[in-house]
Amino acid sequence: MRVIKTIKQMQRLAASLRRGGKTIGFVPTMGALHEGHLSLIRAARKACDIVAVSIFVNPTQFGPAEDYTIYPRDSKRDATLCRNAGVDILFCPSVEEMYPADFQTFVQVEKLSQGLCGPHRLGHFRGVATVVLKLLQTVQPHQAFFGQKDYQQSRIIQQMVQDLALSIRVRILPTVRETDGLAMSSRNIHLNREERQAATVIYRTLKLGEELIRQGERTSHVIRKKMLELIRHASLVRLDYLAIVAPKNLQEIREITGPILIAIAAWIGKTRLIDNLRLDSESKEGRRP
Amino acid sequence: MRVIKTIKQMQRLAASLRRGGKTIGFVPTMGALHEGHLSLIRAARKACDIVAVSIFVNPTQFGPAEDYTIYPRDSKRDATLCRNAGVDILFCPSVEEMYPADFQTFVQVEKLSQGLCGPHRLGHFRGVATVVLKLLQTVQPHQAFFGQKDYQQSRIIQQMVQDLALSIRVRILPTVRETDGLAMSSRNIHLNREERQAATVIYRTLKLGEELIRQGERTSHVIRKKMLELIRHASLVRLDYLAIVAPKNLQEIREITGPILIAIAAWIGKTRLIDNLRLDSESKEGRRP
Repeated sequence: MRVIKTIKQMQRLAASLRRGGKTIGFVPTMGALHEGHLSLIRAARKACDIVAVSIFVNPTQFGPAEDYTIYPRDSKRDATLCRNAGVDILFCPSVEEMYPADFQTFVQVEKLSQGLCGPHRLGHFRGVATVVLKLLQTVQPHQAFFGQKDYQQSRIIQQMVQDLALSIRVRILPTVRETDGLAMSSRNIHLNREERQAATVIYRTLKLGEELIRQGERTSHVIRKKMLELIRHASLVRLDYLAIVAPKNLQEIREITGPILIAIAAWIGKTRLIDNLRLDSESKEGRRP
Repeated sequence: MRVIKTIKQMQRLAASLRRGGKTIGFVPTMGALHEGHLSLIRAARKACDIVAVSIFVNPTQFGPAEDYTIYPRDSKRDATLCRNAGVDILFCPSVEEMYPADFQTFVQVEKLSQGLCGPHRLGHFRGVATVVLKLLQTVQPHQAFFGQKDYQQSRIIQQMVQDLALSIRVRILPTVRETDGLAMSSRNIHLNREERQAATVIYRTLKLGEELIRQGERTSHVIRKKMLELIRHASLVRLDYLAIVAPKNLQEIREITGPILIAIAAWIGKTRLIDNLRLDSESKEGRRP
């Protein structure tokens, strides 16, 4: 596994791999790797000749009051995990390398950044879109892999890639969960034992929504009401939002007649967690009079 | 010369040229080609194996009250000029091809967009940066060529390319002028005979500034004052700005001790023209006590 720290070096390597006819699969991460990341790496391993992983805790996607400084970092462990997973290239630039002193270019994906996490994390998706675009220009992959847990982020990147005509296939892969359903996240490490237990209510609430739809309920506010009853009475939990939206444009849906995404963001103590379920087929199944 | 109208086709062609080891030189234009564009095409012809020109009048860089609808268009003449100049690829996408219905991604180069034309053309440079980034992703050039007449635009694109780590060399080439000094511009066609005559005051004013500096004047406000006297008394001319700035960051300069850019934007009747002079060496030459 080659560990690369500069953009120039990474670009030279990518260009030479491409000239040699190799396909590059790319998994951008902020490190603190878990099974979710590893599932993306395995998918890249399967789909492409070369697997590149980046580790970069991106300051521009954290608000001033957010957890940039305490975001978990463990570069040695991450490197070992990557090596064991068969990663070919580990790109881990410094903050100065990605954001030199006169840096001033930002990318904004407008409509998709407005709902869900948008109002709760001002500037977050601007930081995400900007850094991902720069990473894509640097690693020059044929395919890039993202986890569905960060669904809004994934859609924003997909839209950016389409709008700016990048020749890259963006793949969104299923969320990997703990045995009790909690979505894997680097931030789970911040949870103490009680909080870890309390956090399971997020997935249970999502599953309640799924079950109600499976039973034939089609009116969002009815589903939301029952879900809110469950999550609002849970201890240690403070809800940011619970939304039922269209997976493509992330706009809220009143009557469920097609694919939907149920998304939740909630604080468990001082840790903000997000999760979602995408329901594609059940809605059609239940579309009887 | 191949004429290409879709992004996919252009990308396929660019990828195959690159695989074949060819270098691509790119001149993005809004058409209504003149000798300034042709000088860029000649430079690309000299520097690269393949020359690609795009013609696209970009709606997102025009304000609602600006001249998008009357911007000169003459695609037949442009194609002939390109063919005669040895252009290999002419890329002329439709507005729908560049901006499909759900388009929503925009690029902003922040500091460099704030001064000079920035406040006079709100959103203009956001539109420019966005379309140029998309064109660069589409044509995939090794080098891209811009004219110094649009100096702020050129610097913004240079900065964007650097900030986002595009592997492209941005080249800014000298302004081409009519015999009386007027900078070539597609918009000059809008000038009637009186306005065309009046427009020469822009270059004469820039040359006055240059002459004052050559004579040893180093205080910007003294130079500006004398320049303003000349241009403000000219008939048919309404000044947007006259600024003396650092060529790198476009910030205003009080005492001239290094390279400078003198930039003017002025309305001649209903036509807004811009021009500038970049002075690199004179300032050092005159830096005696």
